[in-house]
Amino acid sequence: MPIKALIFDVFGTCVDWRTGVAREVEAAFAAKGIAVDGLEIADAWRAEYQPAMEGVRSGARSYLQLDDLHLENLHRVLSFRDMGDVLDEDELIVLNRAWEKLPPWPDVAPGLSRLKRRFIIAPCSNGPIALMTGLAKHGGLPWDCILGADVARAYKPDPLVYRMSVAALRLAPAEVMMVAAHNDDLSAARAEGLKTAFIPRPTEHGRNQTRDLTPEADWDEIAADFGDLAGRLGA
Amino acid sequence: MPIKALIFDVFGTCVDWRTGVAREVEAAFAAKGIAVDGLEIADAWRAEYQPAMEGVRSGARSYLQLDDLHLENLHRVLSFRDMGDVLDEDELIVLNRAWEKLPPWPDVAPGLSRLKRRFIIAPCSNGPIALMTGLAKHGGLPWDCILGADVARAYKPDPLVYRMSVAALRLAPAEVMMVAAHNDDLSAARAEGLKTAFIPRPTEHGRNQTRDLTPEADWDEIAADFGDLAGRLGA
Repeated sequence: MPIKALIFDVFGTCVDWRTGVAREVEAAFAAKGIAVDGLEIADAWRAEYQPAMEGVRSGARSYLQLDDLHLENLHRVLSFRDMGDVLDEDELIVLNRAWEKLPPWPDVAPGLSRLKRRFIIAPCSNGPIALMTGLAKHGGLPWDCILGADVARAYKPDPLVYRMSVAALRLAPAEVMMVAAHNDDLSAARAEGLKTAFIPRPTEHGRNQTRDLTPEADWDEIAADFGDLAGRLGA
Repeated sequence: MPIKALIFDVFGTCVDWRTGVAREVEAAFAAKGIAVDGLEIADAWRAEYQPAMEGVRSGARSYLQLDDLHLENLHRVLSFRDMGDVLDEDELIVLNRAWEKLPPWPDVAPGLSRLKRRFIIAPCSNGPIALMTGLAKHGGLPWDCILGADVARAYKPDPLVYRMSVAALRLAPAEVMMVAAHNDDLSAARAEGLKTAFIPRPTEHGRNQTRDLTPEADWDEIAADFGDLAGRLGA
């Protein structure tokens, strides 16, 4: 069954959240005359990501958009560092939009433009429609539509997210390929019948990264970057 | 409150469904050696549109995507003309995709490209994500994201469609402008607090069109076409 659509993980796979968030954090505190280690705060902020979504996945709380979870997590991370009072609530809301201003990896925009000529391309991220739209406008990502958490009102790797993204396209799962730098995302997509492509992002977590350096299963495609993937798929 | 996003009605406002559907209908029957009046069938097919959605709006049946309603309506229209057996089910499904191959009015793609530089642009149609994606790829419509019926699992003018489209953007209603060639669509959007823009499409229903020839209220913008709207909004 030929592939008709490619859906993409975004944080880590398409964009470099770590240096992007670090830059915005450092700028926000520099405006108050305070020097902070932006990368350390970015890592801590991101470390709250999975536990926050787990509350929704477990059913302990109903779906709310990732922006709201990010803001809760930012409060927690800054309070833990005794920096909870440096920025007022409006300033925190502005800083929270750091997640809309993340730089794409250099191969992403040109690779997507090639893939778009042959396939439907869409993010399948835990970020909601507004956040994905902001990132796309910031980074020039030419998505055809936006799928993922908001479409399913659930968070990956909940199978609902893959299932409802495929359903929104009115395609069969085997006509859709999930592209990610994370093996667990691809495992969950494969369990729903999607095709899979692994792209390593060995510096997503910095130079000492230990996870997702290599494909951990026989994914349908394993490519060096988005341009390589486009070539392999004939786009 | 400045406008941050423009959301658009699609059938009639962005694309010429009547001549597009007529062409596909005529081609499908010509392949069987049968000449039909495509415009007459297009008008009849479209006449089933509002009654079909009314079943969902009234709560008599749960939300299903417009493609499914279109296919039901096509069966009805052809049966009524004693042409229910000319095309088999697979051929009807192909013909049903006529709604993904509609020509945009000539001002739409260039106007949207200008508007996109300054605003978020998205369809807010009763067509679902897959259908809107197909139309966008066919006609080169550079949407930032796709809102409308699928996001709300409801059909315009149900207020939920406008409300959930605005919520998906994480904006206030007054930051969003609904653009349509139909006065009733704008009335419903205004009732939810959105700004409104009217663009006349005086040949949507052919040369003898009698409705929506003029704005029927003091809409926030009244423009001759998408280029004129872009100019009025400084894009």
